[in-house]
Amino acid sequence: MTHGIADDAQLALLLELAATPKPGNVDRERDHPDLRFEQFLAGAVGARPGLDAAAAGAPVGTAFETAVAGMAARARDNTQFGALLLLTPLVSAVAVAGEATRAAAADVLEATTVDDAARFYRAFEHTDVRVADPPDDFAGLDVRRGADAIPTLRSRGLTLSEVVVASAPADGVAREWATDFERTFDAADSLRTGTAPLPARISETFLRLLADTPDALVAARHGHDVAERVSDRAAELVDADRADVEAWADRLVEAGINPGTTADVVAAALFVALSRGLRR
Amino acid sequence: MTHGIADDAQLALLLELAATPKPGNVDRERDHPDLRFEQFLAGAVGARPGLDAAAAGAPVGTAFETAVAGMAARARDNTQFGALLLLTPLVSAVAVAGEATRAAAADVLEATTVDDAARFYRAFEHTDVRVADPPDDFAGLDVRRGADAIPTLRSRGLTLSEVVVASAPADGVAREWATDFERTFDAADSLRTGTAPLPARISETFLRLLADTPDALVAARHGHDVAERVSDRAAELVDADRADVEAWADRLVEAGINPGTTADVVAAALFVALSRGLRR
Repeated sequence: MTHGIADDAQLALLLELAATPKPGNVDRERDHPDLRFEQFLAGAVGARPGLDAAAAGAPVGTAFETAVAGMAARARDNTQFGALLLLTPLVSAVAVAGEATRAAAADVLEATTVDDAARFYRAFEHTDVRVADPPDDFAGLDVRRGADAIPTLRSRGLTLSEVVVASAPADGVAREWATDFERTFDAADSLRTGTAPLPARISETFLRLLADTPDALVAARHGHDVAERVSDRAAELVDADRADVEAWADRLVEAGINPGTTADVVAAALFVALSRGLRR
Repeated sequence: MTHGIADDAQLALLLELAATPKPGNVDRERDHPDLRFEQFLAGAVGARPGLDAAAAGAPVGTAFETAVAGMAARARDNTQFGALLLLTPLVSAVAVAGEATRAAAADVLEATTVDDAARFYRAFEHTDVRVADPPDDFAGLDVRRGADAIPTLRSRGLTLSEVVVASAPADGVAREWATDFERTFDAADSLRTGTAPLPARISETFLRLLADTPDALVAARHGHDVAERVSDRAAELVDADRADVEAWADRLVEAGINPGTTADVVAAALFVALSRGLRR
C-alpha cells in the first residue's frame, strides 16, 4: 500500500517530465543547455527514498529533506525541489487518510511542526533554489540562509506550514500550501476527465495553468512583467494549433524562460489524479 | 545502501529508455504504435518493489516475480521483462558482494533454487512474453505454460539458473546467465570509458551490441535471417553519420522490428556501470 503511494508520486514526476510540449520546460523533446532530460530522470530516482519515507509516515520535513538530498545527489542540480514540496505533504495525506483530498492535505499541513520547518531550511543546503525575496518581517528567515536561519526559526516558533506560506507569498508552490492545494486539485480533475491521450492532457493542463496564473519562477528570474506576458501568450495559445505551441516552446527554451512552478503544480496534480485513478 | 542499489537499477531502466537513437526500440524520440514511452516509465516505477526486494536480500525468483508483476500492473504490457531478468540477479550480486563483478553474479546464479525457478514460471502469468521454442527435451517446461509447468519443474528438480540457461539457448538474456554476464560487463566497460555525453554513449553501445550479435527477440518474431540482416546493417552503421542511424531507427520502428534483447543488455550494462561509477 505505502509502496503504491510512492510509486504514484515518482510516476507523476516522470509523466510530467515526458509530456510535450510544455513550453519553457525540459520535456521529452527539449533540454535546457545546462539542465537535461536525464538529470530529471535521475532526480526522480534520487527523490524516491524521501517519497518512501513520506508514504511510511515520516514527518513531512524529514521526508522532504530526504527527497531533496537524494534528488540533488543524483541529478547534480535542482530538478524537482518545488514539485517535491508539493508531493511530500500530498503523499503523507494519502498515507494517513487513504485518499487524496484537500481536507486530508490541509490536515497534514496543519500538523507540521517547528522541527519540520528546520528540515525545510536544511533542504536548501542540498541544492540551489531560486526564490523570490521574503517579506520584510521575514528577513532573518530568508530560506536562502539555509540552516543559519534555524535559531531564528526556533525562537519565533514557526511551523513548516507557517514558514512556507509566509516566506514566499508570491510563490506558486507556497500558494498551494496556503490554499490547501486549490490549483493542484482543479488540475487533477481536468487530467482525470479529459478524453485525449494522457500526454496530450498533461500538455494542455500545463498550458491552461500557465494561462491562468503568471509563473512564480519566471517572475523571480525575469520580473513580473515578463511572467505576465508569458501567461498572456499561453492564454492565446490554449486553443491554438499544436505547431504554434511547439514553436513557442522552442522560443521560450532559447530565451531561457522556464515556467517551472507551473510544471511543479502539474506534477502534484498528476499524483492526485494517479492516486484517484487516471486513464492513460 | 540497499536503497542506492535499487536506485541504480531503476535509473538504468530509465536511461536506457531515454537514449536515442536506439534503432527499432522505443526511445526518447520514438514510440511503437502499441507500446509507448510512458508505458516504459510506468514499468520502471512498477518494477521498483521487486528491485528493492532484490537489494534487501530476497531470493532472486521472488524479487523477479515481484518486479514483473509490478511492471505489468503499471505498464499494462510487457515493457521490461528481459531487462528485469538481467537486473534482478545483478542487484542481488551487488547487495551480497558490495560490488558488481562477474564472479559475484555467478555466485548468485549458482545459488538459485527450484523455488526460484517456480517463481520464474509464475512471472510469465503476469504478462505476455515472446520467447523462442524450447529444446525438445524441455517441452514440458516451456515457460509459456506458466505455473502449469511447476509440477514438472519440481519433479526434475531444476534450479532457476538451470531453467533459464537450458530453456532458451538461443535467447540473448539466457546467454548472459550462461556466460556470467559477459556482454553485460563488456558493454558496461565501454559505457564507463567513453568520453561522449552519456546518452550518446548508450546509443553507440546499443548499436555495437546489435552489430556483434543478432537480436534474440527479432529472431523469435521474424526469424534468424531477419535478425542477421538487422545486425549486418547495424555493423555498417556503427561509424556512420547519426542522421543515417536516425533514418534506420525510423524504418525499423515502421517495420515493427524491435531488437528488445539488445536493449535489455544495455539496461543491465548501465546498472553495472552506475554501480561502479559512471560519468554523465
